[in-house]
Amino acid sequence: MTPLFVALIHYPVLDRNGRIVTSAITSLDLHDIARAARTYGLRGFYVVHPAADQRQFADRLLDHWRLDHGRLYDSRRREALDLVETVVDFEGAIKAAEAIAGARPQAVYTSARSTEGLSYSELRERLDSAGGPPLMLMLGTGFGLAPAMRERADLILKAVHGPDEYNHLSVRAAAAVILDRLRGR
Amino acid sequence: MTPLFVALIHYPVLDRNGRIVTSAITSLDLHDIARAARTYGLRGFYVVHPAADQRQFADRLLDHWRLDHGRLYDSRRREALDLVETVVDFEGAIKAAEAIAGARPQAVYTSARSTEGLSYSELRERLDSAGGPPLMLMLGTGFGLAPAMRERADLILKAVHGPDEYNHLSVRAAAAVILDRLRGR
Repeated sequence: MTPLFVALIHYPVLDRNGRIVTSAITSLDLHDIARAARTYGLRGFYVVHPAADQRQFADRLLDHWRLDHGRLYDSRRREALDLVETVVDFEGAIKAAEAIAGARPQAVYTSARSTEGLSYSELRERLDSAGGPPLMLMLGTGFGLAPAMRERADLILKAVHGPDEYNHLSVRAAAAVILDRLRGR
Repeated sequence: MTPLFVALIHYPVLDRNGRIVTSAITSLDLHDIARAARTYGLRGFYVVHPAADQRQFADRLLDHWRLDHGRLYDSRRREALDLVETVVDFEGAIKAAEAIAGARPQAVYTSARSTEGLSYSELRERLDSAGGPPLMLMLGTGFGLAPAMRERADLILKAVHGPDEYNHLSVRAAAAVILDRLRGR
């Protein structure tokens, strides 16, 4: 299988008014996306935050579940959280994934507003075919990734939709749906 | 479209040791599953809890977003939360859905451990074909629905899986994936 990674990006993202902001780390994002990452066979889940105190918050949470009490309490949760790593910026996520996969991953931009881009079956085909580069999905918190992150991407993935135009999933739910479309059975 | 509903059940569910318990309502479950329910065109989302104080907790949360401040702050969230109703038991969910759909829904049991049952494409076909009964998906909190709920179901849906046997999604993520498989495009 082509190595697949995911990055949860807290800067630069948009707020409700379209301004570029830094969002706070939400502990349930880490738990839910880690469990989805493990379920769909990802090789790593990077939590991208520029602020040291926010990364320390996430690291303490991860340590709790990886060590001692949390480890004994729920080994399945630990197995998922073992995939998580905090990094300062998106380039840090790419570098960390490159060290695991042995090749630099292509960055895949995701957004609830993308009307153009690859379909899920097209990206799934790339993942299923041997010899392609590793892929890193970019997930935005807040009201989505800043335009600069789109320019930085190698590929763009179409938005997830149901029967109509409303598609305001939480980032936790969107991550699970995207991974299921790419790796579910 | 065949009317589709979802019930999030807090009793009877299992704990990690397989004992039958009542779980507490989690506010993010309400937000995330409501947004997924709206995204995938559901007609109602029922939060099933036997304890009055837990239902009141949920109702206060819903009122905050439906009225005044919350309504102005985020109309998309309000639109999703408008689908949510608290009920005492699963029969209450069925009755409320029957009043909306004009026919009694069939109950569809979901579990991360179901090896048998309908495939997603089989259930999707039922939803796409005209004239079938409404459907109500049963989602378990805690460590899943108690066996009694399975016996109460009209249909059983296969578990969601990725590439291997690990499939420990949060109920929020599982709900989004199941709805996407049934109603995504």
